[in-house]
Amino acid sequence: MKIGVFGTGMVGETIGSKLVALGHEVKMGSRTATNDKALAWVKKAGAKASTGTFADAAAFGEMVFVCVAGGGALDAVRAGAKGLDGKVVVDVTNPLDFSKGMPPTLFVATSDSLGEQIQRELPKSHVVKSLNTINCNVMVEPSRVPGDHDVFVSGNDAGAKTKVRQVLTEWFGWKKENVIDLGDITTARGTECYLMLWLRLWGALGTPDLNVHVVRAKK
Amino acid sequence: MKIGVFGTGMVGETIGSKLVALGHEVKMGSRTATNDKALAWVKKAGAKASTGTFADAAAFGEMVFVCVAGGGALDAVRAGAKGLDGKVVVDVTNPLDFSKGMPPTLFVATSDSLGEQIQRELPKSHVVKSLNTINCNVMVEPSRVPGDHDVFVSGNDAGAKTKVRQVLTEWFGWKKENVIDLGDITTARGTECYLMLWLRLWGALGTPDLNVHVVRAKK
Repeated sequence: MKIGVFGTGMVGETIGSKLVALGHEVKMGSRTATNDKALAWVKKAGAKASTGTFADAAAFGEMVFVCVAGGGALDAVRAGAKGLDGKVVVDVTNPLDFSKGMPPTLFVATSDSLGEQIQRELPKSHVVKSLNTINCNVMVEPSRVPGDHDVFVSGNDAGAKTKVRQVLTEWFGWKKENVIDLGDITTARGTECYLMLWLRLWGALGTPDLNVHVVRAKK
Repeated sequence: MKIGVFGTGMVGETIGSKLVALGHEVKMGSRTATNDKALAWVKKAGAKASTGTFADAAAFGEMVFVCVAGGGALDAVRAGAKGLDGKVVVDVTNPLDFSKGMPPTLFVATSDSLGEQIQRELPKSHVVKSLNTINCNVMVEPSRVPGDHDVFVSGNDAGAKTKVRQVLTEWFGWKKENVIDLGDITTARGTECYLMLWLRLWGALGTPDLNVHVVRAKK
């Protein structure tokens, strides 16, 4: 499968490398076609890896992962909007605001979300928010954290969520029962705000290799 | 032990009833000394239960639980401030804002928290944020949800957190290893923002008898 990955940071590189390792063709997109980090990644990742602008990566991918820093997400999807028409867009971003020091705050929260903003920016695409609650290494290798723990999907299109669920289970190794469909894209407010807890858990536990498992009473 | 409970709603009643059942003396506080719901609760809960104003309940309790609706929390602790000096104040509130429809948003989030606001309002008290991530029935009976799941404490005073940890484990039945100390009171931003996810989990799973278990990689 041909896949676009927006973002040249740790998240984009980790997801891009995993997809290449699985045998897919991946184009890493950034603001320019000659981003140093993207070129270095292509060199390392091999023949199935390529790079280009956001528009190039959007046009290339049958599915596109948005892994840029939250503050650059809307500019990135705007740059790639035409190529994203009709496609599944997996939004992995978090609206982290580092301007007030550490740990970061969120620049949009509780009454709106970056997932919703991206969906509004791409009305013809099927945005699915997922994986944003987990460190990138755990995203593509859930067994780094022992036992049952969960990943969430939020989106308006059931078919798109089914495709993302397949990516999570068949490609990334998540157990079917550990993928929780929260509902439409407005539920991205839940997973984005959860980051505020995740950051404190990281601080308290001293490792980013952590996740939560949702436990419920039996009916 | 003599305990004050601020709030006559489901949370205050559930915690108050549990404390009375454990043999403690509980004074339920509200804006007036003759609140109908508080009087009805006293009648039901028996000889160890009493009611009064917030100031009365604050003066009565050796420890005080703040279980009012988030929007009324600062007024409540202001009314009880004098009686709360030097005491452990367990803040169970969430800053839920229902003015924009359902599910609610938060009226303070990510760069501040209601827990911090309460601590600032009560500089001579030891505020510990806890239990706000869980439905009230599960707060005092964690076995309603099967298996391991966790409760958090946030606060500036280590001694106060130790006391709250004892309440959680020895009185309410939480396992020691399921009480996670997130750090100082600013970490209340984490658990309050988590409510945004909790509300969607409730929607998706169809039961409020749910909680999360934090899983981490072994070091």
